[in-house]
Amino acid sequence: MKRYETLAHTIADEIRNGNLAAGTRLPSLRQIIAQHGVSQSTVFRAYYLLEQWGLIRARERSGYYVAPGAGPSAKRRAPRAAATRKVDISDLVFSVLDAATQPGIVPLGSAFPAPQLFPLPRLAKSIAQATRLVSPWSTVVDLPPGNEQLRRQIALRYLAMGVSQPVDEIVVTNGALEALNLCLMAVTRPGDVVAVEAPGFYAALQAIERLDLRAIEIPVDPRTGLDLVALGNALDRHDVRACWFMTNFQNPTGVTLTAEKKRALVELLAARDVPLIEDDVYGELHFGPDYPLPARAFDRHGRVMHCSSFSKTLAPGYRIGWAAAGRHAEKVQRLKLMTTLSASIPAQAGIANYLEHGGYDRHLRKLRGALQGQLERMDDALRRWLPEGVEWVRPDGGYFLWLEFPQAIDAMELHRQAIARGISFAPGPLFSAAHGFERCVRVNFGHPWSREIERAIRVLGEMVGEPPVRKAG
Amino acid sequence: MKRYETLAHTIADEIRNGNLAAGTRLPSLRQIIAQHGVSQSTVFRAYYLLEQWGLIRARERSGYYVAPGAGPSAKRRAPRAAATRKVDISDLVFSVLDAATQPGIVPLGSAFPAPQLFPLPRLAKSIAQATRLVSPWSTVVDLPPGNEQLRRQIALRYLAMGVSQPVDEIVVTNGALEALNLCLMAVTRPGDVVAVEAPGFYAALQAIERLDLRAIEIPVDPRTGLDLVALGNALDRHDVRACWFMTNFQNPTGVTLTAEKKRALVELLAARDVPLIEDDVYGELHFGPDYPLPARAFDRHGRVMHCSSFSKTLAPGYRIGWAAAGRHAEKVQRLKLMTTLSASIPAQAGIANYLEHGGYDRHLRKLRGALQGQLERMDDALRRWLPEGVEWVRPDGGYFLWLEFPQAIDAMELHRQAIARGISFAPGPLFSAAHGFERCVRVNFGHPWSREIERAIRVLGEMVGEPPVRKAG
Repeated sequence: MKRYETLAHTIADEIRNGNLAAGTRLPSLRQIIAQHGVSQSTVFRAYYLLEQWGLIRARERSGYYVAPGAGPSAKRRAPRAAATRKVDISDLVFSVLDAATQPGIVPLGSAFPAPQLFPLPRLAKSIAQATRLVSPWSTVVDLPPGNEQLRRQIALRYLAMGVSQPVDEIVVTNGALEALNLCLMAVTRPGDVVAVEAPGFYAALQAIERLDLRAIEIPVDPRTGLDLVALGNALDRHDVRACWFMTNFQNPTGVTLTAEKKRALVELLAARDVPLIEDDVYGELHFGPDYPLPARAFDRHGRVMHCSSFSKTLAPGYRIGWAAAGRHAEKVQRLKLMTTLSASIPAQAGIANYLEHGGYDRHLRKLRGALQGQLERMDDALRRWLPEGVEWVRPDGGYFLWLEFPQAIDAMELHRQAIARGISFAPGPLFSAAHGFERCVRVNFGHPWSREIERAIRVLGEMVGEPPVRKAG
Repeated sequence: MKRYETLAHTIADEIRNGNLAAGTRLPSLRQIIAQHGVSQSTVFRAYYLLEQWGLIRARERSGYYVAPGAGPSAKRRAPRAAATRKVDISDLVFSVLDAATQPGIVPLGSAFPAPQLFPLPRLAKSIAQATRLVSPWSTVVDLPPGNEQLRRQIALRYLAMGVSQPVDEIVVTNGALEALNLCLMAVTRPGDVVAVEAPGFYAALQAIERLDLRAIEIPVDPRTGLDLVALGNALDRHDVRACWFMTNFQNPTGVTLTAEKKRALVELLAARDVPLIEDDVYGELHFGPDYPLPARAFDRHGRVMHCSSFSKTLAPGYRIGWAAAGRHAEKVQRLKLMTTLSASIPAQAGIANYLEHGGYDRHLRKLRGALQGQLERMDDALRRWLPEGVEWVRPDGGYFLWLEFPQAIDAMELHRQAIARGISFAPGPLFSAAHGFERCVRVNFGHPWSREIERAIRVLGEMVGEPPVRKAG
């Protein structure tokens, strides 16, 4: 850790444990330099970090102050009822994500697995090699649908699971998030109705908000997945123009649809000519022997737009994903050209190189093994520390667990208190436009087991028994 | 050139010179292998390329055929009048861009300078170094507004031109195109009116189309730039919610607004609280001694959203740009998080590393010198080969020249014929929603001078004298 990061953490701790209360002026530059024996630029950078974390704020010509709401006491005073309903989904999501990335916080609320699980040095070698070798003209030629080698490698992976995927329907994007957004744009117009899951990935709700669409939420059962009867009814009642579903290791419940259900889903939508945007970013993280076939595998008419990426399996931060967009591929490609032109060429070439030479399947086996081991530990810890009656289903892949509490807890209030105690998780209301699922939280088991995680689960268990989060009645 | 590329060019030439007519079945795999002594995979890749260029098409189980419209004769038969008016701006843009990237075509229509003008090997070193050194956690920490080092380096460059730019208002994006699109989304709602330039960058028109906005076009004079009186009138008459203008080396005219005009522009918009999205991707390519201050320099209220990138000056294909988005920075950052999450981290870190250690200013001096030299040669060739009366203004930077023909030519028809003769340029109708500027073409001088370019200008000169492009009357 760099010196300024250490300093930032020291001050952050002072704020979190209440020694520096909200509104307090921070020590002057001179004082800090004298006190910690650091340089001016170290202080500057540390303050910069603290400001980024939302813990301090600058006032012009008068220095830095602890931000309102940054201390633990301020958090406990926050009104309870208002937060779960009136807050806009994006504000909610951003505040929870922000909290989860603060260093020193146990990141059970994170959307990512631990970066140390990825072969980053080997990848660095691939990107170095590929960037050195890449033709200058690739900066022009690779623009439209993406790096050709990479798209061929992606097509080969489809082939390996028994799906024939034409290379020219694959559009390389800035991560799966862009793929999903472009697919949604390709098949909808403002005002259209889109079916999403409840609970479901909040980015779908954000995209719907942003594009002036209307969402209809289809219930997801943590054991059996999407409710196809409810979907059928929704299709009968509304002019649904697209569905955005996650069929494998669903976020947040972890549930996977059976092959039969996926086939039925594809048929149901085919009968009404409704496109399916299939978010399958966790498919490669299966604990069983095989990749559970996505709905895409049962589609013969190019109606399923299968989106995935390397962000959760190989190269976080490289921002390389794709849409296998079927009959909408050209539209998606054009939208890509109009909005961000192309994905980063060194990142594309680097991943293509790694896929050819880096040992991706070996890495995946190791990664799956690690995640499965972490799930065991998490499962044990939850049994040990959580009160009776809390329910969860062990997923067959991915790195999310969905906890359902029996009593009436307030997940948003629990989240606020947990952050004050250095623990993040993802509260249920994040995963629905109606802000339901107050009794639920999503827990990430994507990090190597540690004493801090064990402690976090213990503290979580203690907290759910305490009065402030347990509702009257 | 690789073997399959050579083969693709050979076949492409056959199609372009008419030996292989539209609708003709291409030789079978076996015939080609026998005829050219190449491997099966070489043929496969060559056909793949040809398909990408739109020259051939596959029919299921029956092989490849020359695509309709691929041959020169087909092109000459195309209806002339329809093309300039009824075609949708995106179709027009994509077909012209596609044509410009076909190998073997003299790329006077390209939007990019020649990639060999960039320090790609030195950059490859930077990305290799940076990716090796980057902390695994940067994949999480760098997400929100972007790599901190990079943003500091960008802020330093503002400082060097005398503009104080807060680091926390800089959002790193996938190239300037994403920055511009996000800024536009941040300040508009469907149905809003946006002022753009005419002629102006077609991406602005595409974004306006895509977001269901309405465009009002403000005239740009190739000598004096944007017409501020016309802008004032437009602001009086319409509820303009944003302006999207290019103030330095404007695309396509090359014109730069004087500092006085930029100041007046900022004041005009400030008086009505209208945000300015300033596209300044060519500013660093000034032939004079100094970066011509952007409008951003005259803004004290965070109303100018200054967008730029490294794509035209250092790292084409890396897709790293930014928005210095003033008071709208947080909104832009959130939109970025919702749509593409983050720019590629290796690319960000690589450019940050290069900016610190690679000698960016030295490279820029060299690049500016090269472009200026190429402008001299282009100017000479145009004088030599074009008929009397064609007008152009030599720009003070960038790599675009705007030609205005005195007689009534049809730039779209000229473009079609030029492509058939292996030359691309950008026809005037691309640069306006009204598809005007039929007598104008944009010429790229961003490529090292060559006999092919000289020949292309000569052919262009011959063509504008010929009947098919010269309108009656």
